[in-house]
Amino acid sequence: MNKERPVILVTNDDGITAPGLHALVDAVKDLGQVLVVAPDSPQSGMGHAITLNHLLRLDKVDVYGEHDWYQCSGTPVDCVKLAIDKLLHRKPDLCISGINHGSNSSINVIYSGTMSAAMEGAIEGIPSAGFSLLNHSLDADFSGAKVVARKVAMNILEYGLPSGCLLNVNIPDLPIAQLKGMKICRQAMAKWKEEFDERVDPMRRKYYWLTGKFINNDKGEDTDEWALGNGFVSVVPVQFDFTAHHAIPYLNEQRYEL
Amino acid sequence: MNKERPVILVTNDDGITAPGLHALVDAVKDLGQVLVVAPDSPQSGMGHAITLNHLLRLDKVDVYGEHDWYQCSGTPVDCVKLAIDKLLHRKPDLCISGINHGSNSSINVIYSGTMSAAMEGAIEGIPSAGFSLLNHSLDADFSGAKVVARKVAMNILEYGLPSGCLLNVNIPDLPIAQLKGMKICRQAMAKWKEEFDERVDPMRRKYYWLTGKFINNDKGEDTDEWALGNGFVSVVPVQFDFTAHHAIPYLNEQRYEL
Repeated sequence: MNKERPVILVTNDDGITAPGLHALVDAVKDLGQVLVVAPDSPQSGMGHAITLNHLLRLDKVDVYGEHDWYQCSGTPVDCVKLAIDKLLHRKPDLCISGINHGSNSSINVIYSGTMSAAMEGAIEGIPSAGFSLLNHSLDADFSGAKVVARKVAMNILEYGLPSGCLLNVNIPDLPIAQLKGMKICRQAMAKWKEEFDERVDPMRRKYYWLTGKFINNDKGEDTDEWALGNGFVSVVPVQFDFTAHHAIPYLNEQRYEL
Repeated sequence: MNKERPVILVTNDDGITAPGLHALVDAVKDLGQVLVVAPDSPQSGMGHAITLNHLLRLDKVDVYGEHDWYQCSGTPVDCVKLAIDKLLHRKPDLCISGINHGSNSSINVIYSGTMSAAMEGAIEGIPSAGFSLLNHSLDADFSGAKVVARKVAMNILEYGLPSGCLLNVNIPDLPIAQLKGMKICRQAMAKWKEEFDERVDPMRRKYYWLTGKFINNDKGEDTDEWALGNGFVSVVPVQFDFTAHHAIPYLNEQRYEL
């Protein structure tokens, strides 16, 4: 790796052939030395899963041009771990994930492989961010999202990020001229209401598909959902200290004793 | 379900045959009406993964005696979602996960299927907790952990939990008489240092196993690691608002604009 240019690790959860990944590489390729390590198949909804009970493959892929591209048989988090331990042998200067096909705002941050890959980067002490476009389709227009991703990457490379924090960046599905700007937000307290789709297979056994409705009862104007609904790019700082510090005094008053 | 007794949903990530799951059911079975929905195979390290690209099976298992036991082909989080939407058709009064074979303290909370199942319960608004014993072996002695799990479950049923928070309970591998008590803690800021084990298969292709070393540079005496190292059961309140609220003013001073 070139010592003078920043090293940028790029991954995603939609897999190595996803247009959003190629858009992200395209957006940052002149900012540094790019290394891509991405799952060899779609890994949406994998959250912070790691591969403990199966072996992992990591293979160079020669079909995507000038940069170093690797595909990995594991999860997005595995990709980040393997990239650092087996390819870079050092921390990259920036770890970015995406551009995800579909939103990772609000509670989706918890289920998202895209965001978990960026969170793994942050746990490793690397300035990290995940990017998502609010359009699930394979032929989505990433032109606006690329401008956003490039700007955020430049900001992080210039200013860094507070310790223990990464960015969750969601981008409305709008032409760049219609985006109203970026807004630093908190995660909206929304959730999914499950509605499993129940079916019967040809052997007459029941099976299910996970589906649901997104329900947002958090009307705060400081949330990512509000920003996205009003034409702003949402930027949520995310932490991996999950401690509910505010609950500690309350619990100390209860009888947690043997 | 009996309307007078609390409904207790029990799950885990080690799978439906794991001794720790049976120990947890045994610990709480007289506190309410127990429903078990657990993965049909080990799901350690699955984090908050959900199954989006595969169908899900959910089958009643008749071999475990008096309670309702179901096995699910999906992740621990899928188990909680399916239990609520397809079996209970209501929120249970308590959602508990474990007893995990091995620690889920500190950063392990992020990778843990056990803790993610409990977190999914909390997202659904159910008082929830995950339990882990610091012993990986299948023939571990769960007698002390059972006393702890029962006490915590009774506490939660009696006092509830602060909104938006669940409990991460880790139990030293000691006889009950040697446990010094329970300690409400914060998550230690420790991490794993990866050391992938590189091998070559009979076709001469490389593959990897994920291994690593746990490194704790957080010497705080208010952490779960300190508590566990000093003979206490650690009880960490965990939240699913991942926003790094302290970082918002800092980011607002930087140029996050288009």
